[in-house]
Amino acid sequence: MKPYCREVYYYETDQMGIVHHSNYVRWLEETRLDFLRQEGLSYHAMEETGILIPVLGVSVSYKIPFRYGDSFAVTASLYEYNGIRMKIAYDIRKEGEEEIYARGQSEHCFCGRDMKPISLKRSFPELYEKFRGLLAK
Amino acid sequence: MKPYCREVYYYETDQMGIVHHSNYVRWLEETRLDFLRQEGLSYHAMEETGILIPVLGVSVSYKIPFRYGDSFAVTASLYEYNGIRMKIAYDIRKEGEEEIYARGQSEHCFCGRDMKPISLKRSFPELYEKFRGLLAK
Amino acid sequence: MKPYCREVYYYETDQMGIVHHSNYVRWLEETRLDFLRQEGLSYHAMEETGILIPVLGVSVSYKIPFRYGDSFAVTASLYEYNGIRMKIAYDIRKEGEEEIYARGQSEHCFCGRDMKPISLKRSFPELYEKFRGLLAK
Amino acid sequence: MKPYCREVYYYETDQMGIVHHSNYVRWLEETRLDFLRQEGLSYHAMEETGILIPVLGVSVSYKIPFRYGDSFAVTASLYEYNGIRMKIAYDIRKEGEEEIYARGQSEHCFCGRDMKPISLKRSFPELYEKFRGLLAK
Repeated sequence: MKPYCREVYYYETDQMGIVHHSNYVRWLEETRLDFLRQEGLSYHAMEETGILIPVLGVSVSYKIPFRYGDSFAVTASLYEYNGIRMKIAYDIRKEGEEEIYARGQSEHCFCGRDMKPISLKRSFPELYEKFRGLLAK
Repeated sequence: MKPYCREVYYYETDQMGIVHHSNYVRWLEETRLDFLRQEGLSYHAMEETGILIPVLGVSVSYKIPFRYGDSFAVTASLYEYNGIRMKIAYDIRKEGEEEIYARGQSEHCFCGRDMKPISLKRSFPELYEKFRGLLAK
Repeated sequence: MKPYCREVYYYETDQMGIVHHSNYVRWLEETRLDFLRQEGLSYHAMEETGILIPVLGVSVSYKIPFRYGDSFAVTASLYEYNGIRMKIAYDIRKEGEEEIYARGQSEHCFCGRDMKPISLKRSFPELYEKFRGLLAK
Repeated sequence: MKPYCREVYYYETDQMGIVHHSNYVRWLEETRLDFLRQEGLSYHAMEETGILIPVLGVSVSYKIPFRYGDSFAVTASLYEYNGIRMKIAYDIRKEGEEEIYARGQSEHCFCGRDMKPISLKRSFPELYEKFRGLLAK
């Protein structure tokens, strides 16, 4: 799995001179959708089929701040999944460094367009298997 | 027309220590929807009826920066309107002050859910008149 | 403690038709700074004195989505504090309703302008007591 | 000059199902800083030397909306410059297409850390020439 990398945008900083903490939640989303795509799972295509993956919960812990001029690298891993819900963990580093700058987690369910939960196993068995293949990767 | 007022949010600042210029475009939207509502025109209700008012153009000129701790007051006025398109001008001040801190303009059309233009005059004559009533207010 | 209330902004929605989950982290910040101000603690003034309160961690769990047209009401409570770190919990409701729509938590430390931790008890005893007064409120 | 390209982020969409118009102003900033960097002008380094380039004005006109799943490509060109102020124009396309999706403009001045205008020609003659080299590129 290739980490998701990009530079910090100027507009992501705040008057403390560091990236505002709320932006990390957006970075997790960018990473998550990139992570799925790397596995041949286009969220864009899923939404068009009528499968939404809303966020049930998100958390971030911040160790070292990012600043304008930095680039970040995020790795994602699916660590819980049963076809109805899933949990993803994220490690955020400065690009090219080993040290963890922040960690994140997100929890999701699978829904139809009506926002009602669906079971991938029953309704989309092929997709169910693809997600299962991400576990422990 | 009561000006639209609120305080600056911390997350709206950037590392220059001032409000990032992109947020003003969001302030114009907040003001616009408040302005319509003050006239009994709920954009929320319009969207539910199938009338969208997308933005065709927007501009802002910045005179004096806003900082965290400030509150702003924006007045809006509809200065062009023909039932198909409209233009709104905005004056942004610090709350309680006369001096202009920034000025903005936005241009809009009226669309259906399919993003195709509609003529309010033909399709929603009552709404057409309500908007016309805003001219020069 | 008066809950922090405001309407959802149109630009806070995403193509699912609900408020994008990242915005809640900003709502927590808005609430937190309002909460402190209600107790006579201006974060703006604190930053000018050289006291920063960066975020060490944040989490949100989402129960019921918010949509454009809704207003939210957030209550905050300080539930851990020792003058070096603090934790705040947030309940997010639709304005006027009892039901919880989302819950949040944030953890913070107190820093100087150099981003080094400070002990309020030692360096700002008066402020230390004010924060202590918020515990269990 | 290589165009600045990236995909649309999910969180940049709104409930119309298109990219919220305010985000284009951020795209212009991303493009501008990339454009300068391509010419060996790091805005990050400039800020550290004490040269800020605040935005005096910005405008965007929207022709065709962007959606999640799209990638955009922005070209920038400096079309006015005198060492005190400058104007940049932007053409926004879908990546790989010729058609213009949106156009933008931004106006800037050069300031010191105290937000007072500086003349590049007098204070930073080398930088002055570098910017002049961008004219008509």
